Amino acid sequence: MLKKYIIAIDLGGTNLKIALLDLNFRIKARQSFPTGRLKTKFKLIAKIKSSVTEILSAEKISRSEVLGIGIGVPGPVDYGSGKVHFFPNIPGWKDVALKSILERMIRLPVLIDNDANLMCLAEARLGAAKKSKNAVCLTLGTGVGAGLLINGDLYRGSGFAAGEIGHMPLNEEGPRCNCGGRACLERYIGNKEILKSAKKYFKRNITLEELSSLAKKGNKKAKELWYNVGIKLGIVLAGVVNLINPDRMVIGGGVADAGKILFSAVIQTIKERSMPVQARSVKVLKARLGSSAGLIGAAILLKEGLNK
Amino acid sequence: MLKKYIIAIDLGGTNLKIALLDLNFRIKARQSFPTGRLKTKFKLIAKIKSSVTEILSAEKISRSEVLGIGIGVPGPVDYGSGKVHFFPNIPGWKDVALKSILERMIRLPVLIDNDANLMCLAEARLGAAKKSKNAVCLTLGTGVGAGLLINGDLYRGSGFAAGEIGHMPLNEEGPRCNCGGRACLERYIGNKEILKSAKKYFKRNITLEELSSLAKKGNKKAKELWYNVGIKLGIVLAGVVNLINPDRMVIGGGVADAGKILFSAVIQTIKERSMPVQARSVKVLKARLGSSAGLIGAAILLKEGLNK
Repeated sequence: MLKKYIIAIDLGGTNLKIALLDLNFRIKARQSFPTGRLKTKFKLIAKIKSSVTEILSAEKISRSEVLGIGIGVPGPVDYGSGKVHFFPNIPGWKDVALKSILERMIRLPVLIDNDANLMCLAEARLGAAKKSKNAVCLTLGTGVGAGLLINGDLYRGSGFAAGEIGHMPLNEEGPRCNCGGRACLERYIGNKEILKSAKKYFKRNITLEELSSLAKKGNKKAKELWYNVGIKLGIVLAGVVNLINPDRMVIGGGVADAGKILFSAVIQTIKERSMPVQARSVKVLKARLGSSAGLIGAAILLKEGLNK
Repeated sequence: MLKKYIIAIDLGGTNLKIALLDLNFRIKARQSFPTGRLKTKFKLIAKIKSSVTEILSAEKISRSEVLGIGIGVPGPVDYGSGKVHFFPNIPGWKDVALKSILERMIRLPVLIDNDANLMCLAEARLGAAKKSKNAVCLTLGTGVGAGLLINGDLYRGSGFAAGEIGHMPLNEEGPRCNCGGRACLERYIGNKEILKSAKKYFKRNITLEELSSLAKKGNKKAKELWYNVGIKLGIVLAGVVNLINPDRMVIGGGVADAGKILFSAVIQTIKERSMPVQARSVKVLKARLGSSAGLIGAAILLKEGLNK
């Protein structure tokens, strides 16, 4: 039977999203579940299976019309074998052969990649990095990660672990990082660090959303805080621009909502600190696909991956 | 007539080298001239022409047996058009269409790239990065540059300017760099900076060669100096390893002769500061082709480039 659909799964630290897309990557149906309630990997995998069955039956689509399942996960995964190494924010997932488990359970082809790569793929095909040849697509959140587009294709690196911009050092010396390193960019501009600085500035707990909205209303402290985040991010990106010489730098994730003040600090820093040819080559843009990027990227992964 | 030879040119700040190679990249004949004596670009280009004519006539080879000319230059060049942007260490070379000038004068196909890229290409095909898929090949000298091998091919970036590892920041704040940036790696471990530190350590002028030989003999001050160079280099490379996840890191250039102490500091720092998967993926090796890498790389560039 003609294959007309793709199932896309976006497994995040907060939500597990499952959707049905057509071959033009339009979302036809979707379900979402709080990840925290699926306490073990067995429960989570069972939920994936039951949700896929439910969606197909509600849409009156037979399994034979489905090309396969693309999945994005919040941590390092061996793209070749489909084995999850671990998830920094979900316990109990050490060395899980997720691809083969799901293929056996659901009897459809499965491809898995990490969330930053899928965001990059989605932005490259349908978003801010469309027509780009070489792009760096960042996601700013609890973690600071990136996907790299090289010669129009996702570049994964020799151990499928490329793109860890959050773990490039901002200084020779600095605070220890969970990754084992020191002075990693994430230790300065990860969500946790931003919230810590915000508490110092405002002498109370404050959410990222409030911090962004205050900055947009012109609050000086909030603007200064986002400006400093932008400068630190811009310094590391200036080095990445000199190394990779990309034509696009796409920034997404919750923190990117801080808006103009963050972006202008990043752009100014790249202009000041990158080399002239490299600085002229690159455009810094906001990600366009928002919170659906993960699902769309997972569907693109499956379609392009099966065609290879 | 059957094409059996390639002419390779390595234009360096110190010497202009011109050689005849066979299609297996063996050097059959070579000439060398001090670059400093060729005071204008006209004199230099005329010397290239007369040297090529001399070598061909001495070897009794007709122009029709030559595939073309590959050239490596010490500065940024537009690989597509063959236009030199400028040379940091040779004055008078702003926006020179070197490829078309030489093609018109010598009537052979010409391909041009920068020296770091050609060193990387030579090491990838015949040296320390042979069989590597993704590699970073560094040249340490007055400048600190790199060529990037991605999926087995030289990666040049969107403006043909990728690989500028020497201009990645080591710190947020730091000394101004010639490139316009700040706290660039080159401002800590370029030859000039190493010689400045050496003068402070030894209270006299000292050459890099002496500094390397002292370190090998166990001199404490020399060892400490090279160790510090290795740590600083290793910190930036740890970030590059996390970003690119290469399988090889090849280090060449004069400074690489400092030997074991430099390499062990780099390797230790990458192990300590890179993420586990990335650190396991990468081997740090010394470049193998030495001072002929530029000529060999130029010949490979021409042969592979014409076949595309």
